[in-house]
Amino acid sequence: MTRTDLDQPAPLTLAELEDYRRSIDNLDSALIALLAERFRLTEKVGLAKAASGLPPHDAERERKQLEHLRGRADAHALDPDVAADLMSRIFHHVKERHEVLRCRR
Amino acid sequence: MTRTDLDQPAPLTLAELEDYRRSIDNLDSALIALLAERFRLTEKVGLAKAASGLPPHDAERERKQLEHLRGRADAHALDPDVAADLMSRIFHHVKERHEVLRCRR
Repeated sequence: MTRTDLDQPAPLTLAELEDYRRSIDNLDSALIALLAERFRLTEKVGLAKAASGLPPHDAERERKQLEHLRGRADAHALDPDVAADLMSRIFHHVKERHEVLRCRR
Repeated sequence: MTRTDLDQPAPLTLAELEDYRRSIDNLDSALIALLAERFRLTEKVGLAKAASGLPPHDAERERKQLEHLRGRADAHALDPDVAADLMSRIFHHVKERHEVLRCRR
């Protein structure tokens, strides 16, 4: 087998595509469950922060989290830019929600 | 205890905030690991699709995935709009990568 053969993946059968999709769907269900738990905790933090008069957002904590998560992504061979973009989107929704909780008081 | 008391969470101590943050950091590590596995699989699918000459994106599959994941989110008391936004962002990165893999051939 030449180097070029190794670089060329085999064409995909429909059964193989379905098999991959089943794994992806299972991972997505797990992602939703983890996200639900994450937002359940940040909801509690947001409510308690609002009750304490603490600011809803801690920029320094977020910077450190992203730096750490970029490292974790890299260790898992996940593009750190993709990981940072996705985690930033999660943080964005949390911040938006914490602002709402703060303004409700 | 009045209804109002029940609605008002107690102020947050620093130790409690740190405890929540530890849980959130653990969940984020788990999210990164799941995302890494998801992108590892979609990379294989993208390579195989490119080798097969299959289109990199299946809009009908994505529509069904989002509809299903909205239901999962709702069952987990996670805002379905937030879940759909985050999953759409994941799909966006996959599509972008699949286009790159297709054009490389």
